[in-house]
Amino acid sequence: MASVLILMGSQSDWPTMRNAASMLEDLGVSWEARVVSAHRTPDLLEASMREAEQGDVRVVIAGAGGAAHLPGMLAAFTHLPVFGVPVQSRTLKGLDSLLSIVQMPKGVAVGTLAIGEAGAANAGLLAAQVIGTTEASVADAVKQFRAQQRDKVMQNSNLEL
Amino acid sequence: MASVLILMGSQSDWPTMRNAASMLEDLGVSWEARVVSAHRTPDLLEASMREAEQGDVRVVIAGAGGAAHLPGMLAAFTHLPVFGVPVQSRTLKGLDSLLSIVQMPKGVAVGTLAIGEAGAANAGLLAAQVIGTTEASVADAVKQFRAQQRDKVMQNSNLEL
Amino acid sequence: MASVLILMGSQSDWPTMRNAASMLEDLGVSWEARVVSAHRTPDLLEASMREAEQGDVRVVIAGAGGAAHLPGMLAAFTHLPVFGVPVQSRTLKGLDSLLSIVQMPKGVAVGTLAIGEAGAANAGLLAAQVIGTTEASVADAVKQFRAQQRDKVMQNSNLEL
Amino acid sequence: MASVLILMGSQSDWPTMRNAASMLEDLGVSWEARVVSAHRTPDLLEASMREAEQGDVRVVIAGAGGAAHLPGMLAAFTHLPVFGVPVQSRTLKGLDSLLSIVQMPKGVAVGTLAIGEAGAANAGLLAAQVIGTTEASVADAVKQFRAQQRDKVMQNSNLEL
Amino acid sequence: MASVLILMGSQSDWPTMRNAASMLEDLGVSWEARVVSAHRTPDLLEASMREAEQGDVRVVIAGAGGAAHLPGMLAAFTHLPVFGVPVQSRTLKGLDSLLSIVQMPKGVAVGTLAIGEAGAANAGLLAAQVIGTTEASVADAVKQFRAQQRDKVMQNSNLEL
Amino acid sequence: MASVLILMGSQSDWPTMRNAASMLEDLGVSWEARVVSAHRTPDLLEASMREAEQGDVRVVIAGAGGAAHLPGMLAAFTHLPVFGVPVQSRTLKGLDSLLSIVQMPKGVAVGTLAIGEAGAANAGLLAAQVIGTTEASVADAVKQFRAQQRDKVMQNSNLEL
Amino acid sequence: MASVLILMGSQSDWPTMRNAASMLEDLGVSWEARVVSAHRTPDLLEASMREAEQGDVRVVIAGAGGAAHLPGMLAAFTHLPVFGVPVQSRTLKGLDSLLSIVQMPKGVAVGTLAIGEAGAANAGLLAAQVIGTTEASVADAVKQFRAQQRDKVMQNSNLEL
Amino acid sequence: MASVLILMGSQSDWPTMRNAASMLEDLGVSWEARVVSAHRTPDLLEASMREAEQGDVRVVIAGAGGAAHLPGMLAAFTHLPVFGVPVQSRTLKGLDSLLSIVQMPKGVAVGTLAIGEAGAANAGLLAAQVIGTTEASVADAVKQFRAQQRDKVMQNSNLEL
Repeated sequence: MASVLILMGSQSDWPTMRNAASMLEDLGVSWEARVVSAHRTPDLLEASMREAEQGDVRVVIAGAGGAAHLPGMLAAFTHLPVFGVPVQSRTLKGLDSLLSIVQMPKGVAVGTLAIGEAGAANAGLLAAQVIGTTEASVADAVKQFRAQQRDKVMQNSNLEL
Repeated sequence: MASVLILMGSQSDWPTMRNAASMLEDLGVSWEARVVSAHRTPDLLEASMREAEQGDVRVVIAGAGGAAHLPGMLAAFTHLPVFGVPVQSRTLKGLDSLLSIVQMPKGVAVGTLAIGEAGAANAGLLAAQVIGTTEASVADAVKQFRAQQRDKVMQNSNLEL
Repeated sequence: MASVLILMGSQSDWPTMRNAASMLEDLGVSWEARVVSAHRTPDLLEASMREAEQGDVRVVIAGAGGAAHLPGMLAAFTHLPVFGVPVQSRTLKGLDSLLSIVQMPKGVAVGTLAIGEAGAANAGLLAAQVIGTTEASVADAVKQFRAQQRDKVMQNSNLEL
Repeated sequence: MASVLILMGSQSDWPTMRNAASMLEDLGVSWEARVVSAHRTPDLLEASMREAEQGDVRVVIAGAGGAAHLPGMLAAFTHLPVFGVPVQSRTLKGLDSLLSIVQMPKGVAVGTLAIGEAGAANAGLLAAQVIGTTEASVADAVKQFRAQQRDKVMQNSNLEL
Repeated sequence: MASVLILMGSQSDWPTMRNAASMLEDLGVSWEARVVSAHRTPDLLEASMREAEQGDVRVVIAGAGGAAHLPGMLAAFTHLPVFGVPVQSRTLKGLDSLLSIVQMPKGVAVGTLAIGEAGAANAGLLAAQVIGTTEASVADAVKQFRAQQRDKVMQNSNLEL
Repeated sequence: MASVLILMGSQSDWPTMRNAASMLEDLGVSWEARVVSAHRTPDLLEASMREAEQGDVRVVIAGAGGAAHLPGMLAAFTHLPVFGVPVQSRTLKGLDSLLSIVQMPKGVAVGTLAIGEAGAANAGLLAAQVIGTTEASVADAVKQFRAQQRDKVMQNSNLEL
Repeated sequence: MASVLILMGSQSDWPTMRNAASMLEDLGVSWEARVVSAHRTPDLLEASMREAEQGDVRVVIAGAGGAAHLPGMLAAFTHLPVFGVPVQSRTLKGLDSLLSIVQMPKGVAVGTLAIGEAGAANAGLLAAQVIGTTEASVADAVKQFRAQQRDKVMQNSNLEL
Repeated sequence: MASVLILMGSQSDWPTMRNAASMLEDLGVSWEARVVSAHRTPDLLEASMREAEQGDVRVVIAGAGGAAHLPGMLAAFTHLPVFGVPVQSRTLKGLDSLLSIVQMPKGVAVGTLAIGEAGAANAGLLAAQVIGTTEASVADAVKQFRAQQRDKVMQNSNLEL
């Protein structure tokens, strides 16, 4: 399997979550994405984590919206690090998603990113940073990405009315 | 098994959730209460619902706090009606619990009650109302409870400085 | 009368609440829908509940927005189970509707669903689950619906950039 | 009957609502206070408003907490002006009470005051101001109260470390 | 002057506040509307209230958005009853306007209505109800308006998929 | 008069606002503190600002809680910079105070600090920073205060279980 | 350098922050605007403040959105007064930006303005007010701006249906 | 240096953050804790991250409250994964801390845990999970910890009135 497994509660989360995939792609980290719903396919939660552990996945990224149970439930079924992305919900703008993901009780952890696309991209980045702690080429890609970001800011820093 | 199964994420939820049990007791409905944690014993979620279905449980009541996944996950594993009680959390006062329980996606439903003790008591009451739709004695107990409530208000309705 | 009575505060709530009717339709449960306003036709609250009780309605679904008093007031007038749907409001996005419906005091219960269309659909589903506790055909319809949901997730689970 | 009728959902609201009575007392306006619960004694809502209208009550003050339906339901049953006081709730600190009272739909109005004791006192003051629009002695009492307030501020306005 | 004076912080509040004027118009109550800004014309606050008192205005309606100080400041300068309308703000959707208007300290009261157009219409209605406490023709207009509302609900109460 | 004028809506705000005075004292900036209530002494608002302008006050600090109108109203009456301190309110913990102070409309500005004591101290600090832009001794006092803060952190930076 | 330095976290903040520049332009205060990102160019924070101090900048205005760290970090690196503008964020509408900027701990102050364009304009105004405490021409420009605002309100104050 | 570096904005955060240290201790992961303030010692941010990178630290945990800039600023200065803990703040109960930490812009990521002690403990757990992806003994300790948690739930799962 790939180094990072990206799961989400619904196909409709993909426009948000593809930002995680793109970031990993840019940083040279292999990934795989699938829909697994905490509520509609609850029996797949444990199986997907067993498969990930046996397939040498190193980080799990999970995105969900509203009563967003997917990241926390995956975390309950694995010892791999899980990063959660609150997908923007229709009515409460993702505040419900955020609180449902981040407010985990002691003993099962989800490292939560920002609501929406920025959070998804950062989930990919953070996963790469984790992998980069033991793979120098990935750490280098992260450093290069940061340098490019810095350059972009500096090339366009002057503003006029 | 009993008619109503009361589950909660932690022993520390019992002071809240016992109000559901008391209400059922008062209304003559049999109940059973257990700790099942969505995060610490995720493998018991499905089993507990299978057992409930086979044991002729008619309603499941689930209480949890913070990123409160228990009610929604139980609902995902059963066709029995599930009522959720947001337990008051330490920092966000149960707003996180409420949103995590109530904002379920289309297809898996949790009937959510108020945050804290009043919500727990009302979960018991609502479960009795469900059972009362086919058992006249329970419906009668609900009506009597309501009449008593009304009497109490009327006996103490005058106020003076 | 039908098994489930769907009431709402205004004609403008119907685009939301029709999702409850559709779900019941899909699950083979009879329903009837009417506008009854807690504020504009308060004298009909009690009458509508008396009629429902005598007409063998088993579950009442009520939707309202803003200072959403309809579900709680209907619950105050009946021993039938009442499920409440917070209709998305214009300014506060349904947070006001949600709190007005869910935060009922001890003694009168409303099982509250998610804000908006998903919540309305789930109110229909939950009503069917209640009926399914004594009517096997409805329980079977619920199980089949769940199985179909699961299939849909699994048929479209792979995602690519 | 008195000029102002103060109603509240529960005896436990009296420590808050007595501030309305005290203010009216200080301003020389007659009042009467009773418990009427929107949820536990819903059949009394209409009767209490008919009685108030026939008894020459000029203003109704209603206090309630949580899913605070009392002020809005009373307003639905009368053409008298209704002022609502959000009683501080245990978990959400009265934000739920406030939204449940203030967010009334077009066509039935509740003039809402601040959460808690200050709001209750101000409900009394506002009722007196309404009566003062046609009774000069009450308007004078309001003006005098204001002048006293102003004096108190000015007598203690210097502050030192 | 007219019976009701409608003030607002900015011309841009008129699309909201005109709903108060329309309601008064419908109920046969005379009104007058002007822009007075708490922040841009603070020196006019006191003058406008003195003029209102001398011109036999009976109720002041004030609308404002954001840090909405107008209703409270007008209330500070008069013994007439003041009703406040939180105008929907751009970023926080009127929650800021609502809290700025409703959370007045003990001693100066603003009867606050719902955020936005419904609140403005209801401010007009509530003002009419106040005037109706001593003018039977206005009270009758309010009753008739309520009856019409009720009729409209009942004529369109059946709903079909 | 002193360089900085500290005003607050009530004597009860002094335990919070004295932190502004202490900070100014520590930084060698002269100050004067008084109670001026936007709601109870509205006629003093303009006078207090005229006096401040003529007395060579350079910065105004204003603290208030709830519907906190004082800072914005003072700003409306002066061209001096006004810094606002949201005093922690009883029910909404100062969120109401914060929004009432910070969400000023275009054209009248209040530089708002954090809720409560830290905000009050920082209002004093910011006032000193403003004065420090033209008085080197005050700028030096600010720099020294910062250096002391830094030293305190560094002297106690190691932590053990 | 100019009297006021306007910094922002991203080019995309310029449509908001240009309102600060316009206001300063109108008031005859020199300004300079640049992108400096707390997160993407953290090494420039200190340098930009050193340069500002040496270039006789008197006030720093900083705008940022989401986890808006720029204003607070600039304040940590300088003794110049820093005013912060919460840029409206996509999901939480700037509430996150506001809290991230305003809730600074004791010892490092940011004078915070309203969310979005009004806040940016007011940051420019407040900066001018600070400069106006020692430069009479700027104070005069502020007074004139206020007078113009007042005139505009008064020229268009009558409203009709 | 140790495998995990725990930094916090103030000594007063230690009662919260020591839960991270305890968890790491229990899981056999070496740690080191220090106070580094984003606001009071901003010049140490970069240095502390350079030292961490050279000292073979694998994960950085940062806790802060209010306008909590520390986690995000550390993340800006390093390619190591950073986990953030929102410390409960006095007035807004940690909602400000949470939003300030989690809502990072695209390009700099902070994996955020729950508010308060549970979040701190989980930051330690998540750090161990990251290390466990390449060190089997740590992964085993995590699995054993989970098993113990499960056992504790199961030994005390029955509840009685």
